Amino acid sequence: MSTLPAAILSELELQSIELPSWAFGNSGTRFKVFATPGTPRDPYEKIADAAQVHRYTALAPTVALHIPWDKVDSYDDLRTHAEDLGVSLGTINSNTFQDDDYKFGALTHEDAAVRRKAIDHHFECIDIMHATGSRDLKIWLAEGSNYPGQADLRGRQDRLHESLQEIYARLGDDQRLVLEYKFFEPAFYHTDVPDWGTSYAQVAALGDKAMVCLDTGHHAPGTNIEFIVMQLLRLGKLGSFDFNSRFYADDDLIVGAADPFQLFRIIFEVIRGGGFNHPDVAFMLDQCHNVEDKIPGQIRSVLNVQEMTARALLVDTEALRAAQLSGDVLEANRIFMDAFYTDVRPALAEWRESRGLPADPMQAFAASGYLQQIAADRVGGVQAGWGA
Amino acid sequence: MSTLPAAILSELELQSIELPSWAFGNSGTRFKVFATPGTPRDPYEKIADAAQVHRYTALAPTVALHIPWDKVDSYDDLRTHAEDLGVSLGTINSNTFQDDDYKFGALTHEDAAVRRKAIDHHFECIDIMHATGSRDLKIWLAEGSNYPGQADLRGRQDRLHESLQEIYARLGDDQRLVLEYKFFEPAFYHTDVPDWGTSYAQVAALGDKAMVCLDTGHHAPGTNIEFIVMQLLRLGKLGSFDFNSRFYADDDLIVGAADPFQLFRIIFEVIRGGGFNHPDVAFMLDQCHNVEDKIPGQIRSVLNVQEMTARALLVDTEALRAAQLSGDVLEANRIFMDAFYTDVRPALAEWRESRGLPADPMQAFAASGYLQQIAADRVGGVQAGWGA
Amino acid sequence: MSTLPAAILSELELQSIELPSWAFGNSGTRFKVFATPGTPRDPYEKIADAAQVHRYTALAPTVALHIPWDKVDSYDDLRTHAEDLGVSLGTINSNTFQDDDYKFGALTHEDAAVRRKAIDHHFECIDIMHATGSRDLKIWLAEGSNYPGQADLRGRQDRLHESLQEIYARLGDDQRLVLEYKFFEPAFYHTDVPDWGTSYAQVAALGDKAMVCLDTGHHAPGTNIEFIVMQLLRLGKLGSFDFNSRFYADDDLIVGAADPFQLFRIIFEVIRGGGFNHPDVAFMLDQCHNVEDKIPGQIRSVLNVQEMTARALLVDTEALRAAQLSGDVLEANRIFMDAFYTDVRPALAEWRESRGLPADPMQAFAASGYLQQIAADRVGGVQAGWGA
Amino acid sequence: MSTLPAAILSELELQSIELPSWAFGNSGTRFKVFATPGTPRDPYEKIADAAQVHRYTALAPTVALHIPWDKVDSYDDLRTHAEDLGVSLGTINSNTFQDDDYKFGALTHEDAAVRRKAIDHHFECIDIMHATGSRDLKIWLAEGSNYPGQADLRGRQDRLHESLQEIYARLGDDQRLVLEYKFFEPAFYHTDVPDWGTSYAQVAALGDKAMVCLDTGHHAPGTNIEFIVMQLLRLGKLGSFDFNSRFYADDDLIVGAADPFQLFRIIFEVIRGGGFNHPDVAFMLDQCHNVEDKIPGQIRSVLNVQEMTARALLVDTEALRAAQLSGDVLEANRIFMDAFYTDVRPALAEWRESRGLPADPMQAFAASGYLQQIAADRVGGVQAGWGA
Repeated sequence: MSTLPAAILSELELQSIELPSWAFGNSGTRFKVFATPGTPRDPYEKIADAAQVHRYTALAPTVALHIPWDKVDSYDDLRTHAEDLGVSLGTINSNTFQDDDYKFGALTHEDAAVRRKAIDHHFECIDIMHATGSRDLKIWLAEGSNYPGQADLRGRQDRLHESLQEIYARLGDDQRLVLEYKFFEPAFYHTDVPDWGTSYAQVAALGDKAMVCLDTGHHAPGTNIEFIVMQLLRLGKLGSFDFNSRFYADDDLIVGAADPFQLFRIIFEVIRGGGFNHPDVAFMLDQCHNVEDKIPGQIRSVLNVQEMTARALLVDTEALRAAQLSGDVLEANRIFMDAFYTDVRPALAEWRESRGLPADPMQAFAASGYLQQIAADRVGGVQAGWGA
Repeated sequence: MSTLPAAILSELELQSIELPSWAFGNSGTRFKVFATPGTPRDPYEKIADAAQVHRYTALAPTVALHIPWDKVDSYDDLRTHAEDLGVSLGTINSNTFQDDDYKFGALTHEDAAVRRKAIDHHFECIDIMHATGSRDLKIWLAEGSNYPGQADLRGRQDRLHESLQEIYARLGDDQRLVLEYKFFEPAFYHTDVPDWGTSYAQVAALGDKAMVCLDTGHHAPGTNIEFIVMQLLRLGKLGSFDFNSRFYADDDLIVGAADPFQLFRIIFEVIRGGGFNHPDVAFMLDQCHNVEDKIPGQIRSVLNVQEMTARALLVDTEALRAAQLSGDVLEANRIFMDAFYTDVRPALAEWRESRGLPADPMQAFAASGYLQQIAADRVGGVQAGWGA
Repeated sequence: MSTLPAAILSELELQSIELPSWAFGNSGTRFKVFATPGTPRDPYEKIADAAQVHRYTALAPTVALHIPWDKVDSYDDLRTHAEDLGVSLGTINSNTFQDDDYKFGALTHEDAAVRRKAIDHHFECIDIMHATGSRDLKIWLAEGSNYPGQADLRGRQDRLHESLQEIYARLGDDQRLVLEYKFFEPAFYHTDVPDWGTSYAQVAALGDKAMVCLDTGHHAPGTNIEFIVMQLLRLGKLGSFDFNSRFYADDDLIVGAADPFQLFRIIFEVIRGGGFNHPDVAFMLDQCHNVEDKIPGQIRSVLNVQEMTARALLVDTEALRAAQLSGDVLEANRIFMDAFYTDVRPALAEWRESRGLPADPMQAFAASGYLQQIAADRVGGVQAGWGA
Repeated sequence: MSTLPAAILSELELQSIELPSWAFGNSGTRFKVFATPGTPRDPYEKIADAAQVHRYTALAPTVALHIPWDKVDSYDDLRTHAEDLGVSLGTINSNTFQDDDYKFGALTHEDAAVRRKAIDHHFECIDIMHATGSRDLKIWLAEGSNYPGQADLRGRQDRLHESLQEIYARLGDDQRLVLEYKFFEPAFYHTDVPDWGTSYAQVAALGDKAMVCLDTGHHAPGTNIEFIVMQLLRLGKLGSFDFNSRFYADDDLIVGAADPFQLFRIIFEVIRGGGFNHPDVAFMLDQCHNVEDKIPGQIRSVLNVQEMTARALLVDTEALRAAQLSGDVLEANRIFMDAFYTDVRPALAEWRESRGLPADPMQAFAASGYLQQIAADRVGGVQAGWGA
């Protein structure tokens, strides 16, 4: 138990998990956003906080930006700022849900002028990607309707295709578009990309540079998410993950917090399908730290992913295949669970130390006094949140 | 089909549905609140808008207030304002979810000082009830936790009991406390009053003046809500309804919009259990008009309840009993569905006209120009929403 | 309201809904199958019962068979029997869930010999289709696993593709394969075709003669089924419906019984997408009459579909488009609901009579004494059920 | 980590989990029951199999019986048989769902004669309890309806109360009645005891000897079960558990298989509320081994409960309280998860050996050749299942 095989450690060494800049700003529910002292006031401060996560874990070398929340005058400058802190800029996320014009849709809107505006917003995002050196444009489509009859479902789907085609055509050779799906919210009757099938059908119609983004919190109750992971890998269309966890809806809790075994099954299927440490499949977090501290919340999250990956890599796949082939249900399940129940934490702590990292990143960060420092320093200004 | 029996019409004549003042302010999701021209800036304007609903439907004679959103200098003055407009003030709703002190609970908080503050807030609400002439204090408990281990579930439940006891003891002789339950949100791991059983156990421990409030959007997927209605009426503890509708979570859509047949079954069970037009059971709306116009949204809602009540009153209960007794499943279901499928709208339109009301309240309100008028008049100031 | 437009009536005249032979046999839950006097003992008697549904409604001209439950010595003879009774034989349903060899899969099994057996079973079904004149081979894949680790999800998906390819290659020029998906049951951890996306990906890989079958009871809680209808029609892959209704899981209740408004929305989307009375899209029932009489249960079901189709055809699509274009949410919803709330039953009764059909098919069938007759006649033998 | 504190081990030594006799018979879904060689043909063989579970684990000293499935001529004889094998007879489960008379209810039936029959069945069960020395009568109420309108929900609830009162009055001084609730199945519209609230209200109306039975698979999707555990313990009404696990509906999988973390949280709350090793709270299994071997399936199950109990006992409750009191969400969650992620298996294996038990009960049982022996011995006769 005290050591992990070298082959597993070298896989783990390659692992990287992108952080969302917005996780460092305030977030909440429709009822209340609780503010925290030291919350960043601008993208520079968000990246500084994100760099802390990487510093203590070596797991989070990139930071995703959200436009317009992270608009700055000079992306070159922001990029340099990030690199000075040891991280780089990652996926660019577009936003088509906060402009008053988008009340009834953006890329799907009945009005060509609104669609134009939304497409142009994505063009701007692609321009930013060139400046930041980002590969991926992530599109989460918040569009939908609240009441039956309100919208022409079919027409919206067709318009979505047309809008995406325009955006796709604008991508650079090394750029990709990843289309996220979501079961519901903010729309309550229909969502224009509610499931993996719709996202798949839409990106398949675009071309090789369009992929599906799977957010682990965006499914109907009871959905077998690892099955979808398997299927998208099989179809060659799994572009990225938004990791988080949930008990009910899109709770956006810390990944692994609600159902650790589900996370294990998901990562096992990523490995099984060749998606682990494969350039096609980006690991990202998308979480809201509504009641817990944000930076340690992100540290906890990347550690959860790392620990669960170690467990999933421990599955004795040869023995598992033998049990599966012989129809020995209990033995196959035992082999699977054995890896899940193995406590990889001591070995990972040791390994971290051997790499010059703190054995316990949470404790090391807490001891650093960083939270106290930013609470003292970041006085005045407007704390970042989803509104800005 | 063209007329409804006189006995049904006289029942319908007595029907009243309380409106929530906050339905006339802006609302939205955690992603965006879309504003509308003409949105009220203060409680006076909210009540003016609510009075429009009653004016065109004669269905909504009272308006519920939310404290502190509807705090005013003089409740006597607000009461007079309401009465001048033909409505009166109804249920007082407390708020223990928007103060920074309540981040980890209010009536359940570990810290006695925070509980004191929350209890005192309810005392203030009771004082306001005396001023407004309100009977009911409605407590929706937004308290809970997001992560397993974060909270001591049992301790919180015990403290909740103690806090409620203090509040209960403060009630006047003709006042009541209604305790709402909710499956989840804004807390994502546990909610302190998540189901009717918990609300029932808590109010039963208080006394006769404490009742359960059933919000139709606050249940787990698939829950048979009419069964709960039956049970609470049977136990003598159904105090009030918060009507709305939902496809997924607590969507707060217009009542009857998502599943009209469910609304029919609920109202049928209210009637079956003796809860219709009974003083113990208050009918209220609790909705969010995120994308539709607010005043007509409320008019549509009370009409939906009225129409569905008419259908439920049409059930031939004698024939239904006979079919039930004979085990004739298809005939019992046919009798039940026959009432649901009967188009009561023409008869209700006629009846409205006979009472000096517009046959089509939606159209009459639209024709009145009121929305245009308030959009023109209400310039400047801060539109009301959940934040204020 | 008392008449329906001629254009709608002529559409309705063309409507046909296929009946499942197994609906006339006994069914139940894992806890108990309640038997009924008069239940058919063989396929001939099932078809005789099915013909009663068509006789009183003119809505159900074809009967689907299930192999091996409906195996007979001569399909020519069965076909003649059906035609003598005024109906014809329809879809052939395969069965890969009741042979002991299929405990761990059939078309997906690890063992090539088991797959061979399952593929051969489908070849037999195709042979039967040639004899019965059936166009469609319906494959509901009951395969999956109960425990994480038990099965290699990816390997099974690949084998499924290979097995389906063999079956597909065997189809005649005018024959089709429709692949049903199901969320869960009888497998409880993973199902090999759990969602429309998987069914779509699998049939798209086969060719034009492979389509998706949508069973209205086979989705996760909260799923927007009409959205899937829209999407499959858009993608040209909606092959057939299995209609039924549900409150919780795959309850297989009478279509329209649990959520009539959902049925309305589904049929509206079929019409919107050009799938109504289109040869590509077969309407079928798949229900279990566990506690109600079977023949009237089926009559009630086809009437429910007919009535809801009439309502959906009543939607004023021109006005709806105008409201949608103007962003008038409440008006669009009103137009939509107006059709739903219109009582089409009197007009349909009149129209039925004008076509020589009983105004009230349920009552006419009850008056015929058929149920009493078969209870008296069908004595001895083994009642048909799922086991035989 | 290699040892568990003595205080924990002495708690674990007292732990006992009752086995259901029916878990050793065949079970399946409505689609198929797969038989296994060696399946018991009578209650004596079931008990022999159950005794194997206890022999290898020392965790399962009692076996629950189901009447009429386990009816024998002499319960004295069966009791002696059990004692000879080192186990004793436990809870008696009644059955009101498999007689044709119970199609529309039993204890709730409209017809007094049917209720009489069902009550008498429970009297018989109580008589058997006297013969077997059983304390608990467990009532799972399979009653309900499939279609809205079919049943008078309120009348059934009142009749249920009356029937239960008669049964309750018949209980001996040391006997108890535990009333199980279930969300749905076999009824698909309403279930007469669908939730803990209803079970609680019914047993509270009976008296101190009536308690609630919580089956972990009988809740709506997303239900926080540990909250219910807390509440029932708080109200003094948690009588017993039926342990199993589920992904979708009442899947009856091996306890801990679907969501191990949920099992951890449930057991933690049992301990927190004083219910662990308390005579009031009986731990039982209620599972279906549809595709896996039955005896090892039960061994795996009791080990899962034992291991998870060890983890839950490891929670540093003092540190947890401190973190909760200080509002340190991440630290409280870390302490909670630390216990869950601790690998207690090596220490438990060592401890087992120190008590003369096999370190690995699964392996020891497999090596015993018992399964092969019963497959060879139990030839002929009718294998036990739910039908008999």
